Amino acid sequence: MSFTPLTPDLVNELTGLIGAERCSITLADRDLHAQDSGFHVAHRPEMVIWPEDAQQVACVLQWASKNHVPVTPWGVGTGLEGNSIPVYGGILLSLQRMDRIIEIHADDFQVTVQPGIGHKDLNAQLVRYGLFFPPDPGANATIGGMLANNAAGIRTVKYGASKDNVLRMEVVLADGRIIHTGTRSVKQSAGYNLTQLFVGSEGTLGVITEATLKLVPVPQHMSAMIASFETVEAAIETVVAVRGSGIDVAALEFLDETNTRMLNSTGTDIPPAPTLLMEIHAAHAETLAADIVLVEEICRESGAIHFRATSDPTERAVLWHARHHGYETLRRHHPGQSIFIMDVAVPISAFPTLIAFARETIAAHNIVGYMKGHAGDGNIHIELPFADDAGYQRAKQVNGVIVLKAIALGGTCTGEHGVGIGKAAYMRAEHGEALDVMHDVKRLFDPNGILNPGKIFPPEA
Amino acid sequence: MSFTPLTPDLVNELTGLIGAERCSITLADRDLHAQDSGFHVAHRPEMVIWPEDAQQVACVLQWASKNHVPVTPWGVGTGLEGNSIPVYGGILLSLQRMDRIIEIHADDFQVTVQPGIGHKDLNAQLVRYGLFFPPDPGANATIGGMLANNAAGIRTVKYGASKDNVLRMEVVLADGRIIHTGTRSVKQSAGYNLTQLFVGSEGTLGVITEATLKLVPVPQHMSAMIASFETVEAAIETVVAVRGSGIDVAALEFLDETNTRMLNSTGTDIPPAPTLLMEIHAAHAETLAADIVLVEEICRESGAIHFRATSDPTERAVLWHARHHGYETLRRHHPGQSIFIMDVAVPISAFPTLIAFARETIAAHNIVGYMKGHAGDGNIHIELPFADDAGYQRAKQVNGVIVLKAIALGGTCTGEHGVGIGKAAYMRAEHGEALDVMHDVKRLFDPNGILNPGKIFPPEA
Repeated sequence: MSFTPLTPDLVNELTGLIGAERCSITLADRDLHAQDSGFHVAHRPEMVIWPEDAQQVACVLQWASKNHVPVTPWGVGTGLEGNSIPVYGGILLSLQRMDRIIEIHADDFQVTVQPGIGHKDLNAQLVRYGLFFPPDPGANATIGGMLANNAAGIRTVKYGASKDNVLRMEVVLADGRIIHTGTRSVKQSAGYNLTQLFVGSEGTLGVITEATLKLVPVPQHMSAMIASFETVEAAIETVVAVRGSGIDVAALEFLDETNTRMLNSTGTDIPPAPTLLMEIHAAHAETLAADIVLVEEICRESGAIHFRATSDPTERAVLWHARHHGYETLRRHHPGQSIFIMDVAVPISAFPTLIAFARETIAAHNIVGYMKGHAGDGNIHIELPFADDAGYQRAKQVNGVIVLKAIALGGTCTGEHGVGIGKAAYMRAEHGEALDVMHDVKRLFDPNGILNPGKIFPPEA
Repeated sequence: MSFTPLTPDLVNELTGLIGAERCSITLADRDLHAQDSGFHVAHRPEMVIWPEDAQQVACVLQWASKNHVPVTPWGVGTGLEGNSIPVYGGILLSLQRMDRIIEIHADDFQVTVQPGIGHKDLNAQLVRYGLFFPPDPGANATIGGMLANNAAGIRTVKYGASKDNVLRMEVVLADGRIIHTGTRSVKQSAGYNLTQLFVGSEGTLGVITEATLKLVPVPQHMSAMIASFETVEAAIETVVAVRGSGIDVAALEFLDETNTRMLNSTGTDIPPAPTLLMEIHAAHAETLAADIVLVEEICRESGAIHFRATSDPTERAVLWHARHHGYETLRRHHPGQSIFIMDVAVPISAFPTLIAFARETIAAHNIVGYMKGHAGDGNIHIELPFADDAGYQRAKQVNGVIVLKAIALGGTCTGEHGVGIGKAAYMRAEHGEALDVMHDVKRLFDPNGILNPGKIFPPEA
């Protein structure tokens, strides 16, 4: 791909169009937008722009299309696969200043927001209405970033991923047109589902400038449960059994023994063993109690050596805080190292096979790997610390072997981190000829290829 | 649009390719595929083809693309908006013979099927696994037709529409390529969501030849409830209150008084009044009991004059049978007349306004209208019997006024019947410039415009 470099003349022209207070070419600003939270190589944009409304976004895209300048949308940089790293330089389009709640439709369990608001900040505002937006990737990712990457997280097993919780969007196309997709009706069958085409397209088809999200009532009753097992296999078989029981768990997370040891350094007191963390949300105390009894029964039958349920909010918060901050904890345990984070997902029946294969592969390559995952969805993350390029190459190799296994098991190369840079190489293996169709769609929406180039598609496609 | 007529030479050529036992040009076969279950004008295809595998579908589409012959896919003809009426003649592609269950993935709560199987026939096979496919449009629509039109029905309020219950599909494109979209992993974020692009595209972008569906466990405990109100307003306000309570109802249906009178002629014993039919599915008897108490409380507070709950399967079956067969009952009550069936949906908070507006509009036009709807989703159907062209024109006018009101209220011109012929005129009002984008997608996937022409897009688009 070949693009026009942003010469001082072009920078001046664009700055004149958008306003100097919304543009920067300082090294500091460019460095702040050169890297996400993952392990991919940083790349500086040539310019950072902070638009304040959809018209300004349209103006940038139209100008960039005309001038063949790449535009990479940016939420807050919590992505892990380099999804928002501007690998071809050009314009970094930060949606940070478009962070307003436009309207809360409390009676409809909906909220209309701008893309730059963090989901945690949104939920803090919604709590007074007794409502929340359930997808939770851990970090305070922006809604725009979550939709663009179809982020998911620990509550997806009950409430779905980002894609399942959006009804309507405003999107700016590469040529500067501003369109609306979907409606605020929860049921809609009026033509092509453009909403779902943009969701998960990682900013390569358009820029989301507004979204109406589905909300759910804050559950009246919640309980967290923790179960420990002697073997990984017993833990994983329990996941399949709990899912099979029909209990509507709100979270069903797996941690391997190394992870539990690490988390205990943050204040939790988890037996060092393969562990399941579970959460149940219920409208009635009776339901909650009955579900807990059933889950404990299943865990004991599968050989749990420890089971504890708690409805105490503080204890629940400590548990989930530890789980959510596992990545930071891991970094502290491997000072000076980087962490390669894998993300694959398979049908739940294939989960034990995938986990066993991953453990063997890691052992065979003689490296350290920490496994944790949204097990209820068949989604596993493996964290592989590495110190140098040789270590990186080893991690990449292990990653590739496990990704291809997940695809062979009927799964996907990415359950929730998106394709970005890291998974592009596996798109052909997963999608076959459908990848050509995706590429045709890309060319239709972005004929000059300016939107987030270098992502999703492998170089050959 | 201009297409090539199927001359005897072309019919012979195609028959030679596909096999005589899979082709027919008899008037009887063409007449059987000229009309769906709705009120739109019939149109005979020139030829009917029953392919038996994806390769034969590919062969037909490739040939038709080359020869500029229209192809209209057909499930079993239960559509209501003319979605499968071959308005430009050409080939009627019946998927009837592709009706196999390919594999039941019981541990994954999934099934892989061919498109021609009816959802009731599928569920009859699944019952031994304790699983079912929840979308239920009433008639025994085929899975292919349900996906192509994103059919929904009475259980959508809990389990979602067809679009929410599919993971992976095989699709034949207009040029004969056979692609696979999605995977069997419930979590997937690997590139563009082509699955959701084909779902609801009404056979205008490709032909679905296989699908892996999500299933749910047959609930252990179910209860049906019926509540009667003095006024429509009281019933509709109750719908909003029940939804707002956070109870996870599995069905929340509204019937107006005229509908209850009609249904009683089929053996039910419903007080003749504005009525809500509800169903709750629960994993525990305790949950069910607690939910029923809460629903009754809400109904009484909203002024219900009658409330009854039943967990007796026979009584439940009678109730739902009556609801599902309301259309046939209505036809018997208006012998010799046709029925214009409206379908619109709005955000739930706008439902009372929509219903009041619809009643006024019907009264102002001095016609008869029967209202029933999936009220929990803000989805209403109004049935308008008509005897002649003047009556049809009046019904069409009433329909147009109510559709535009639904769109103005933030809703959609169709919640679940799809666009077909009848809603094409409202696509611009609902989608604005996004309709142009849909049209660009159509041209990309089907450059010769052979796939189900005359649907979704208004003639101007």
